[in-house]
Amino acid sequence: MPLTVEEIAGIHAYWRAANYLSVGQIYLRNNPLLHRPLTVNDIKPRLLGHFGTTPGLNFVYVHLNRIIKARRLSMLLITGPGHGAPGILANTFLEGSYSETYPNIQQDADGLKLFFKQFSWPYGIPSHCAANVPGSINEGGELGYSLVHAYGAAFDNPNLIVPCIVGDGEAETGTLATSWHSNKFLNPVTDGTVLPILHLNGYKIANPTVLARIPQEELEQLFRGYGYTPYTVEGDDPEVMHRKMAETLDRIFDHITVIRADAASQYPPQRPAWPMLILRTPKGWTSPHMVDGKQVEGTWRSHQVPLDEVRSNPEHLTLLEEWLRSYKPEELFDNRGRPVPQLLNLAPKGDLRMSVNPSANGGELLKPLVLPDFRDYAVKCNVPCDANEVSATKILGDYLRDVIRYNAGSRNFRIFGPDETASNRLQDVYQATSKQWEGEVLPVDENLAADGRVLEVLSENLCQGWLEGYLLTGRHGFFSCYEAFIHIIDSMFNQHAKWLKACKELPWRKPIASLTYLLSSHVWRQDHNGFSHQDPGFIDHVANKQSEVTRIYFPPDANCLLSVGDHCLRSRNYINLIIAGKQPTHTYLNMDEAVRHCTEGLGIWAWASTCAPEEKPDVILACAGDVPTMEALAAVTVLRNWAPGLKVRFVNIVDLFTLETPGEHPHGIDDENFERIFDQESPVVMAFHGYPTVVHKLTYKRRNHASFHVHGFRGEGTTTTPFDMTVLNQIDRFSLALDCVKYALPGEHDRVRQLYSEKMQQHKLYVAEHGEDMPEVRDWKWAAN
Amino acid sequence: MPLTVEEIAGIHAYWRAANYLSVGQIYLRNNPLLHRPLTVNDIKPRLLGHFGTTPGLNFVYVHLNRIIKARRLSMLLITGPGHGAPGILANTFLEGSYSETYPNIQQDADGLKLFFKQFSWPYGIPSHCAANVPGSINEGGELGYSLVHAYGAAFDNPNLIVPCIVGDGEAETGTLATSWHSNKFLNPVTDGTVLPILHLNGYKIANPTVLARIPQEELEQLFRGYGYTPYTVEGDDPEVMHRKMAETLDRIFDHITVIRADAASQYPPQRPAWPMLILRTPKGWTSPHMVDGKQVEGTWRSHQVPLDEVRSNPEHLTLLEEWLRSYKPEELFDNRGRPVPQLLNLAPKGDLRMSVNPSANGGELLKPLVLPDFRDYAVKCNVPCDANEVSATKILGDYLRDVIRYNAGSRNFRIFGPDETASNRLQDVYQATSKQWEGEVLPVDENLAADGRVLEVLSENLCQGWLEGYLLTGRHGFFSCYEAFIHIIDSMFNQHAKWLKACKELPWRKPIASLTYLLSSHVWRQDHNGFSHQDPGFIDHVANKQSEVTRIYFPPDANCLLSVGDHCLRSRNYINLIIAGKQPTHTYLNMDEAVRHCTEGLGIWAWASTCAPEEKPDVILACAGDVPTMEALAAVTVLRNWAPGLKVRFVNIVDLFTLETPGEHPHGIDDENFERIFDQESPVVMAFHGYPTVVHKLTYKRRNHASFHVHGFRGEGTTTTPFDMTVLNQIDRFSLALDCVKYALPGEHDRVRQLYSEKMQQHKLYVAEHGEDMPEVRDWKWAAN
Repeated sequence: MPLTVEEIAGIHAYWRAANYLSVGQIYLRNNPLLHRPLTVNDIKPRLLGHFGTTPGLNFVYVHLNRIIKARRLSMLLITGPGHGAPGILANTFLEGSYSETYPNIQQDADGLKLFFKQFSWPYGIPSHCAANVPGSINEGGELGYSLVHAYGAAFDNPNLIVPCIVGDGEAETGTLATSWHSNKFLNPVTDGTVLPILHLNGYKIANPTVLARIPQEELEQLFRGYGYTPYTVEGDDPEVMHRKMAETLDRIFDHITVIRADAASQYPPQRPAWPMLILRTPKGWTSPHMVDGKQVEGTWRSHQVPLDEVRSNPEHLTLLEEWLRSYKPEELFDNRGRPVPQLLNLAPKGDLRMSVNPSANGGELLKPLVLPDFRDYAVKCNVPCDANEVSATKILGDYLRDVIRYNAGSRNFRIFGPDETASNRLQDVYQATSKQWEGEVLPVDENLAADGRVLEVLSENLCQGWLEGYLLTGRHGFFSCYEAFIHIIDSMFNQHAKWLKACKELPWRKPIASLTYLLSSHVWRQDHNGFSHQDPGFIDHVANKQSEVTRIYFPPDANCLLSVGDHCLRSRNYINLIIAGKQPTHTYLNMDEAVRHCTEGLGIWAWASTCAPEEKPDVILACAGDVPTMEALAAVTVLRNWAPGLKVRFVNIVDLFTLETPGEHPHGIDDENFERIFDQESPVVMAFHGYPTVVHKLTYKRRNHASFHVHGFRGEGTTTTPFDMTVLNQIDRFSLALDCVKYALPGEHDRVRQLYSEKMQQHKLYVAEHGEDMPEVRDWKWAAN
Repeated sequence: MPLTVEEIAGIHAYWRAANYLSVGQIYLRNNPLLHRPLTVNDIKPRLLGHFGTTPGLNFVYVHLNRIIKARRLSMLLITGPGHGAPGILANTFLEGSYSETYPNIQQDADGLKLFFKQFSWPYGIPSHCAANVPGSINEGGELGYSLVHAYGAAFDNPNLIVPCIVGDGEAETGTLATSWHSNKFLNPVTDGTVLPILHLNGYKIANPTVLARIPQEELEQLFRGYGYTPYTVEGDDPEVMHRKMAETLDRIFDHITVIRADAASQYPPQRPAWPMLILRTPKGWTSPHMVDGKQVEGTWRSHQVPLDEVRSNPEHLTLLEEWLRSYKPEELFDNRGRPVPQLLNLAPKGDLRMSVNPSANGGELLKPLVLPDFRDYAVKCNVPCDANEVSATKILGDYLRDVIRYNAGSRNFRIFGPDETASNRLQDVYQATSKQWEGEVLPVDENLAADGRVLEVLSENLCQGWLEGYLLTGRHGFFSCYEAFIHIIDSMFNQHAKWLKACKELPWRKPIASLTYLLSSHVWRQDHNGFSHQDPGFIDHVANKQSEVTRIYFPPDANCLLSVGDHCLRSRNYINLIIAGKQPTHTYLNMDEAVRHCTEGLGIWAWASTCAPEEKPDVILACAGDVPTMEALAAVTVLRNWAPGLKVRFVNIVDLFTLETPGEHPHGIDDENFERIFDQESPVVMAFHGYPTVVHKLTYKRRNHASFHVHGFRGEGTTTTPFDMTVLNQIDRFSLALDCVKYALPGEHDRVRQLYSEKMQQHKLYVAEHGEDMPEVRDWKWAAN
């Protein structure tokens, strides 16, 4: 049924109000209702913000409001062009949610003045849809993640509609370009609905956009090819556009209703061609069309501040006042600055307002996972290395399988991976679930189903973005990845870490589940894949971020991995980085020991030391990481031979941030404990999984940091054997043993260097001849002496 | 004209030979020609490599060879599924180029044996199309960059055809998904031809691929929507497939001929719908169909090693022998192991062989740029700060404009940017050229043309990948980007750095032009955009890579930026990172001083010191970065007031790696010089652009490193003023001055801390009230005293 004239007038008034509020935020520090002519003193000293995209966002917003009211739908709006925050903020102001969240700003003239002034004002509201914008889970500062967040939010939320405004600028990014394919992973019965709205306003900062400059037919083919049914709304006459938009959205939501009803009657449901909307409106719509003889509206010149000389150029000031008055604020706000009732009535009420959709503050919805007792999966181990070698990640896979089972009913836990879940040896999870897949399935396929807890796609960006969207809307997840290639999402990690940090300063943002990475197929076990697969730099990247949100763990064996994994799934508001190999290897600690060790985060392993814990050692041999731990243990064996009687204290570090001081990181141990473990005089030779710098950085404030000699990845690698990788980077047992002697028994250094050289020669010759490592290395096992 | 039976037989034989050589590489260390039955001892101890994709690669290769011979085309092959290196290597062996590059391996039985054995053997050939594979510019280890490299190679190479095999796994990555849009930037007259070949073999490691499991109609719409004309070849019967492939490639190359001829007659040329090929063949094609009762050929089970128990399971060994013999090696190689003449004759000769295409060894083609004298663009500066404030990047833009002009005829220099060239103030380059753009152009547009030297797209991945492809094929380029968002390409940077390092070890790989980044809109000038835009972590990322390929520069002013920029454009085989702000600021050095300073890389600024260079200072105030330099200079001013008589030595660092020892980095200065500048006792207070750790890492081996107190980015940020960003992270002038007093005049610390607190309060109050920085900060200028 077409809209009545009154309905259109109402929608148009609401849109004008949102636009007015948007321009006000960009320009005004005073005179918010234009009760008197505008003067230079009403204008902010710095003009910041992005108007270009804003009227389009406001247009979408008011029309979605109509749908919400008419159909009583729960909608979480994702705003890709987050730079258009003035528009989203304007809508939260009109809906009243802004005042509810920030009671210092009420819907009146004083509130309005402050609301305007604080935008892009120091310590005010940032210019993107950041964490402090009610209803936002996607900042849209760094572009490209809107659609992947939308899909992440929609998984397991069958009653949620996620309209996602995709800017035509961000549509050029890699992540966005592949995000369209997320529809091959969305179940039309058990998941929610994503409605992509491609907003073609034609320009980026300085250039036309690709998708705005290809023929309409090509554009529609692209989206049909991506598996969608495109609808288009195009124009610049507001009245005509309101009609078109309303009518098209009605058709789209009818279409969605049909799709969901059809799917509910099918098993398995067919992948539908979900609707998507192409919205083509002028950039800077309703801003001054021409300024200084140049077209502004409809061009890139309206991207940020369409009039940028209002403080110095009286003509610009006049244009600004005309522009503001063109929205007829006197019809929209009463004398006290309160939006008139007709406007207020147009907005949905309560939780139906997009700005307070419960999913936008996921912590409110978060239910803890029901976790199995991780001790039940323990590798039996009476003394170190007496059990068969096991793949630590395979053991973790058993535990994760049961996490899936225990929470199957809640549908609030998922595993994400770039085609590597099985490669990382977590395949036992398929005993409890499948990989969700809405593409075609062939008889030969395994572990695929229309509904499943595992999401696999060959895109780290999609895995990361889906998981972020899933966590931000109050669920739990786990991401396993090859270590080297996790750098693909460095920048997404940055943005998520920044988001979490910002949330910690907002009491109304409730804690969400942590984002936990398991990096397997790590640098020391990519010998066969070669140099391109060898990179532990993500540790450095994480260690640069705020200590209140980052945790890094190096479980040395399967039992420790279980303990750490369980801990991470219980944690909130962190980013947990776990690094553990998938190759079968030794177990050193029984479960009780493992729990104690992981709880302390680091500790002396008396059984691996050649002197009593309270005794002053000649050298401290420290390690963090599974392969470094094995090499360090083997180094103790080597030292028994090369330097009998040398007093070695063995220290293992699981929780990397224990090395920092408590002032720098909450997990940092105090100096007294640090010096009890590392003492103040003994040299410390350390084998570290990553770049040595990380350890130097963390121990920088420790009094004895100068005694740390850290062996780690030095950037050397190639196609070779596993042990040779450690040799190339000098974290092998022999190099460690040599270094212990160098610092603890300098007089013996020359003699031992000779032994070392012989070993190295033996190793190199063996590898060259046999193409694999010497038996003494391959078959090494801890022996008490 | 359809192929004759003999032609098909020849092609098929060649394909069998390539497949045989591929299987041989994966399995055999001996008995390469199967002159006797296979035994366990003939098998390598570790079975590594990826067969699944390989027969498809070989199929494409032999058919492209036919086209090359028939049409005498110059083709550079890009292999996205680089894991299929056994296939590409097999072809280089058949073409003879392998033996030319590595004379120890000739086309005979001994050569074959070694060729097989060394594959994935320690220090042998890696399992991807790495730098040591002749003809490769795309390793394909980390997936997703094939198509963007192909376009980069094609720019300004009108006579080059770049067939690019895109794996259906890598097609799921973000970079690949947006790379298809590169056709909106490729000029059909002045650039070359990219022929994408989407190889649908259906599976990744463990999953079906998205594009293999959507209906053919949808798939074709996708590529039509991306702007291509899709052709499809599908099947598994080799004979039928050879016919189809030959016929389809003929149609495709006829189509390309028509497109290029049409384009040559148009001005500007229309964007053509370039052909692309969809090739659908079984994964692991020709491998054993069933193994242990499970289907292998045509499934993910053939991804790596289709038979993985040949050393322990006699049945597998038998299957392997049957498999190898199914290629009929006795027909393909003579008794001495040389490929039979019929095969050798099928390969193109000389430079027409894809494995020796000159563009694949870009350094061979590289011509130095003709560079203007950068001194001509100098900002006149008699004494520090006497010139007007200038935007350093704008000055560099003037210079780059002339670099473009001087090399217009050579068409070998391009500037790449994610919609930020003008935002980073390099817009003067548009006086000399335009942004290349093959999309629709409207009358209101500016600086767009079908042919131009600047490429802008809102994807850091495309910019990076295009530039890599352009450099690797022997040209020059420049990439300007916002500092925070360069992390998007962290992983691509890693791979390029690794590639360069590998090339340095291969004498036949000639040096290529360096990849130079200009990061502007940096952390200290993203106050307005807020926290999401504030991140200097790319410095850490670069500093982790090998010193032989990395350079990092912090020009403190426009004249230094000119000197550094010129230097970087002349350099080879490096990755240069330049960080310089775009906001108008002061010039400190005249051009002669700037050149001297940049050449030395760091030095004492006597004019900014309060004691003579040879005098022992109370404190050394060091700085790296434009904003840190300004704050450090201002701190000297503050100190004159707060602690008159304090002897301050002022040190500025342009070339960050001068801080490292010469053993760690070739730019490191020796200890004697280091201690001449920093001496051994005086405290060093340093203002650094990035995270302080970087400096601690680089100075770690210096005797006096413990005296370094580094102020840098501490992860604090928000929407605020520029000066407040420095305050938040304590690299502002007042914090620096306070720290100087703390270490140099501890007795005065309390008194000065009081002054400091007053200043801070004054600052905070002013910002809160005015929304901008205090005039004394905004208007600060160096004054001699």
